[in-house]
Amino acid sequence: MNIKDYLQNRSALVDRALERWMPGEEVLPRSLHQAMRYSVFAGGKRLRPILMIAACESLGGHAGQVLHAACAMEMIHTYSLIHDDLPAMDDDDFRRGRPTNHKVYGEATAILAGDALLTEAFRILADAEANRSVPPATVIKVIELVARYAGSQGMVGGQVVDMESEGKEIDFPTLEYIHTHKTGGLILASVQVGALLGGANDSQVAAIKRFGGAAGLAFQVADDILDVVGDQQHLGKNVGSDQARGKATYPAQLGLDEAQQRADELCGIAISALAPLGKSAEILQELARYIVNRDS
Amino acid sequence: MNIKDYLQNRSALVDRALERWMPGEEVLPRSLHQAMRYSVFAGGKRLRPILMIAACESLGGHAGQVLHAACAMEMIHTYSLIHDDLPAMDDDDFRRGRPTNHKVYGEATAILAGDALLTEAFRILADAEANRSVPPATVIKVIELVARYAGSQGMVGGQVVDMESEGKEIDFPTLEYIHTHKTGGLILASVQVGALLGGANDSQVAAIKRFGGAAGLAFQVADDILDVVGDQQHLGKNVGSDQARGKATYPAQLGLDEAQQRADELCGIAISALAPLGKSAEILQELARYIVNRDS
Repeated sequence: MNIKDYLQNRSALVDRALERWMPGEEVLPRSLHQAMRYSVFAGGKRLRPILMIAACESLGGHAGQVLHAACAMEMIHTYSLIHDDLPAMDDDDFRRGRPTNHKVYGEATAILAGDALLTEAFRILADAEANRSVPPATVIKVIELVARYAGSQGMVGGQVVDMESEGKEIDFPTLEYIHTHKTGGLILASVQVGALLGGANDSQVAAIKRFGGAAGLAFQVADDILDVVGDQQHLGKNVGSDQARGKATYPAQLGLDEAQQRADELCGIAISALAPLGKSAEILQELARYIVNRDS
Repeated sequence: MNIKDYLQNRSALVDRALERWMPGEEVLPRSLHQAMRYSVFAGGKRLRPILMIAACESLGGHAGQVLHAACAMEMIHTYSLIHDDLPAMDDDDFRRGRPTNHKVYGEATAILAGDALLTEAFRILADAEANRSVPPATVIKVIELVARYAGSQGMVGGQVVDMESEGKEIDFPTLEYIHTHKTGGLILASVQVGALLGGANDSQVAAIKRFGGAAGLAFQVADDILDVVGDQQHLGKNVGSDQARGKATYPAQLGLDEAQQRADELCGIAISALAPLGKSAEILQELARYIVNRDS
């Protein structure tokens, strides 16, 4: 299967699973569940869930083993976008070409929709039926890992430093802190969860972790580059918005060429990390290439 | 031990445990951890943690078995207060006599401090060291239960309906929905977690659940009454603020006398529910009485 077919096929799987795991629009309170679904089904690429599936598959597992956790991860990602877009934060009116959650449902409901998505994600990770073939100790490990990468010393921490750095001169370590925590962490968590639920042994988890660390950072460097050179229509947001906002980015710190070089280098590191897994990790390698070469 | 000493002693235990489980102010990002600690150590009564401890003790367990989960519950309670106080929600400037989180740290950091407290709560619930003597299946059950009572069909759902009902005529079932979901749920979850971690059998959990359902609702009815007749100094917030805001309350729906009668009735239901547990549940009975007769 080529990478384009793979992305399409696995994202369709994720969408169907989300449809199953997300409370329907008719469930009370309706406005809340509508707001949650609005952002979850807003045309995201499902990159984190797909990476989780691919990591599981690279170890001989199959998508069905991780679909609930993949949905949980997408819900955490979605909550972070809803809260990031709020007036008190990035104050964005559009995301993926559609009005942001608070523009449609109001600020209060948007805050609560984010809170609920985060909470429901943990409910799903702990769901008895979804985990019926998973050793309980692994389920707990997965929950601890996801909370750690999403929490105050993970994604939320990265968002705080990103916000505090706006319009300021920051050094390179601070930029790397923001990128590895705010974006890289959930990607790294996704592949590790895929490996754990796929039944990986310690050395396989270690290889996947090296892959995820490099791929996660590469994703954000590529994102920074796309914000400078990307096509507005493909991105669904304004090109150059990082710069306009005084956001810390790789191209701003290193220049565009060196930023691209860094993205390619990270892609290489990610791919090499997979060597111990052999041929079964080919799709993960393709995903690393896709991450740095995508156009949206 | 009389109830006053019990409350003081157990809340001191909880404070010490929170000191241990909450990242210190020096941990990066400092502003985030300062904001989280500001609200967690703002003089809360630790009612949910104390109820959890008491439930565990009533089954022959001891406080040490549940302290980590008690901290997690207090962190979830605290996150909900921070988000409730935001300008987009209740827009409160003071809580417990001190400026609210967003008045001190700004809206963006307050939102993120809430997000981080919620996420860290799940990390602590899944912590390997804290759960070393707990069967893994029980740990997962606890996490699922907490997420369910805190999520879109629990606490967050209650907050949405509460918000949407402001200034509107609502019927009694809607008022009960708000109170059982927004406040009652976390109290009910707290005693159930205490029972589960204390090693309760199914019939003991069922008794504790009946207790928690009644006590949780009684707490909110008493809260509504205090908002009308309470002493501003003891409450740390403006008396009559619910009415000023057009909030749905028991006294507004039933009148003050009937509301007090309902609180007493719920207290009686809570106490009777404990009968199967015998003498060891005396402190839980005292707590039910305290809940409806407190002055702040």
